[in-house]
Amino acid sequence: MSGPAGIEFVKGHGTENDFVLLPDPTGTLEVSESQVRALCDRHAGIGADGVIRVAPARPGSAAAFVMDYRNADGSLAEMCGNGARLFARFLVDAGWAPAGMVAFETRGGIRTANVPSSGEVTVEMGAVRLGRPSCTTVAGREMHGVAVDVGNPHLVCLTDVDLGELDLTAQPAFDPAAFPAGVNIEFVTVLGPGSVQMRVHERGVGETRSCGTGTVAVAAAYLSSIRRSAGTVRVAVPGGMVTVGITDDDSTLTGPAVVVASGTIDQGFWDRHR
Amino acid sequence: MSGPAGIEFVKGHGTENDFVLLPDPTGTLEVSESQVRALCDRHAGIGADGVIRVAPARPGSAAAFVMDYRNADGSLAEMCGNGARLFARFLVDAGWAPAGMVAFETRGGIRTANVPSSGEVTVEMGAVRLGRPSCTTVAGREMHGVAVDVGNPHLVCLTDVDLGELDLTAQPAFDPAAFPAGVNIEFVTVLGPGSVQMRVHERGVGETRSCGTGTVAVAAAYLSSIRRSAGTVRVAVPGGMVTVGITDDDSTLTGPAVVVASGTIDQGFWDRHR
Repeated sequence: MSGPAGIEFVKGHGTENDFVLLPDPTGTLEVSESQVRALCDRHAGIGADGVIRVAPARPGSAAAFVMDYRNADGSLAEMCGNGARLFARFLVDAGWAPAGMVAFETRGGIRTANVPSSGEVTVEMGAVRLGRPSCTTVAGREMHGVAVDVGNPHLVCLTDVDLGELDLTAQPAFDPAAFPAGVNIEFVTVLGPGSVQMRVHERGVGETRSCGTGTVAVAAAYLSSIRRSAGTVRVAVPGGMVTVGITDDDSTLTGPAVVVASGTIDQGFWDRHR
Repeated sequence: MSGPAGIEFVKGHGTENDFVLLPDPTGTLEVSESQVRALCDRHAGIGADGVIRVAPARPGSAAAFVMDYRNADGSLAEMCGNGARLFARFLVDAGWAPAGMVAFETRGGIRTANVPSSGEVTVEMGAVRLGRPSCTTVAGREMHGVAVDVGNPHLVCLTDVDLGELDLTAQPAFDPAAFPAGVNIEFVTVLGPGSVQMRVHERGVGETRSCGTGTVAVAAAYLSSIRRSAGTVRVAVPGGMVTVGITDDDSTLTGPAVVVASGTIDQGFWDRHR
């Protein structure tokens, strides 16, 4: 039962956005949609928000590694900031890469991470583009915000209401002309200079404990509200705390990457869900 | 990261009631309430409905093993039929006990399980006592049932309504004079001779995918409804299918015990939640 037969895995999280990593040192592990769904099932599987296969990049790549990220429903995804921290932490802790800067391919392009020998990990998150004002309605209350593009669409609403009182169990209303593909919606209060608190409703998912691109969108919108285009912002999410850096053409996300457990997935379980 | 440092664990489920087993061959592993809560956290931990420490019994015990079961909130619990199947399956698969009958201590007394070398596991569940008629109200609809004691209190309601239409998100109303410590409530339709389907609302938890004592209570109430005090009943729960045997002074629960993964809990994670 605890022998070597089976598929190696690591379970961990970044601000309670949790993942099953599948280390694949030979780059040959085939992972089906069905296996991803089975692994992410929180009662019949291990349970996670997504699965990340960790593989070496093909020769000739500008990066050394591949972050092959899948959503819990088995679909392919471009990138995930919280998952990328755990991915990069694994590379260093497992001895695949030395501590320091590491580059890896994602479906959203090549990204880099800065991984110290222990502690928080910083991931490059790409350019942030502020868009137009828009608004949302939560439980009958209209709130104003601004569109932010971090590779995916966000609507960031700075507010002075008590975030704990917001009912995010239903989909907040938004303008479908402004967000034809749906939108992630963040509700933000300012705690102090350079410090904000947020809750997030992710499109197709509902409220979550954390959303990496959401924290970047929130930092950019906050800086814009104080007439700045660059800076560093501490963002408290329900699952923890991250630090976002914004420059004119790039952004970084720094936060915890926590390994909880590692071992092997039962071979019979794996084969039944092939 | 995947080295030997850390605490050994096994994750698995019985009809989607899921558990983290902690094999403790020397009987010396101390597990705090805080560690149980951290392990059972479905985002920041491994995620489970409960934790079961697996240990050898002390010399002089009538059983060879101890099933030390804790609820997800860290509290101690007497016994759990779905967890006992996984516990007993581990004993045989890991080579702690030969296939066949195995006896183990629980806080509810000594129990036995029959564990074949592979496949479903049968656990002895003890005597079942039918009580008085009572009723419950679900979303404004009154339903009649009967009290059943399986070591813990149940109210079993045989009905012909479509179980899929019941709204069990809120606590169904019940008679507090009949159930002063609360009650687990089962809603049951008959599928055919000796075959029923159920949904269950567990006290203090809400609707669950399965409840071992609930399936035993349901089988006893079904047999009583056809004027029998003993027999075998197939019970479909949302998380799968079990078979319950009822005799005048004992009961058995037979069902799947699925190992999903095994490995080590990160030592740093374990120490932080000490």
